Amino acid sequence: MVQGTATSGFKVFNHTMIRVKDPKVSLKFYQDVLCMEFIDKLEFESFTLYYLAFDHSNGADTAEAKSLGRTGREGVLELTHNHGTESDPEFKGYSNGNSDPGRGFGHIAVSCDDVEAACARFTSLGVNFQKKLTNGKMKNIAFIKDPDDYWIEIVPGHRKAGDMF
Amino acid sequence: MVQGTATSGFKVFNHTMIRVKDPKVSLKFYQDVLCMEFIDKLEFESFTLYYLAFDHSNGADTAEAKSLGRTGREGVLELTHNHGTESDPEFKGYSNGNSDPGRGFGHIAVSCDDVEAACARFTSLGVNFQKKLTNGKMKNIAFIKDPDDYWIEIVPGHRKAGDMF
Repeated sequence: MVQGTATSGFKVFNHTMIRVKDPKVSLKFYQDVLCMEFIDKLEFESFTLYYLAFDHSNGADTAEAKSLGRTGREGVLELTHNHGTESDPEFKGYSNGNSDPGRGFGHIAVSCDDVEAACARFTSLGVNFQKKLTNGKMKNIAFIKDPDDYWIEIVPGHRKAGDMF
Repeated sequence: MVQGTATSGFKVFNHTMIRVKDPKVSLKFYQDVLCMEFIDKLEFESFTLYYLAFDHSNGADTAEAKSLGRTGREGVLELTHNHGTESDPEFKGYSNGNSDPGRGFGHIAVSCDDVEAACARFTSLGVNFQKKLTNGKMKNIAFIKDPDDYWIEIVPGHRKAGDMF
């Protein structure tokens, strides 16, 4: 692929947005279980957007720098909360995209140095698994579920030639 | 949030996976329209995974480095092709997550230096818009649609205090 001048402004796959029923529950999960940082929030009349990401500045970036830098970086998760779903008895929950009807979106993925240690920690925290390391053919990846049942793949950060993940 | 030693191995929000009907059509879109690079492929018996990302090495990384580095970086898009959907007359297409039933996933986002120029280019390429810059309240963001109708937000890479995007 040739990048011409008209396209050279493109730079980052910035974020992925999923809707969540209850932001308190989801923010706790993504911060405490997955160790992402809350970096920004936009409040509108009927919905609020929450942004999370991993800090790659070793703590050097200020909160303002993280907020302003939110659209210029990769790896941002946007959680959309439509006000009221958290306490609406009629609300049926969101689709995680992995069954019909509604199949399409599959998952997000977080990589880490030690998947076994990560999964042991998830187990100790009572996290639900979609696929444990011992399930299925691929013994080096796992899938956990977030509070809305979205799948999160846990994958080794280091690959060598021939690795099928 | 305190990151303990048990969690310090976590590092990146690595990828987002969506299913696509026809990989030829989708790969062409993500490469030619969004200027992402194809960096890796994993073939299984009944499905194939295609990986795309933006190159941040200014062309310095080899193809092997991009493939092996795929799980250690952020901003990777994984396209899952379940073999046969591209030519199955019974296949109804995937849900983009933005209407019931199936609502949940919302979109992915790509940021760039000049959203107006980007949108003019999309128009010249015949890309479908979910929201043009001139539609709605937010005049500085647009949403285009990929070949499976997944929404892709086009957002400015630079924010200043008070920007509501």
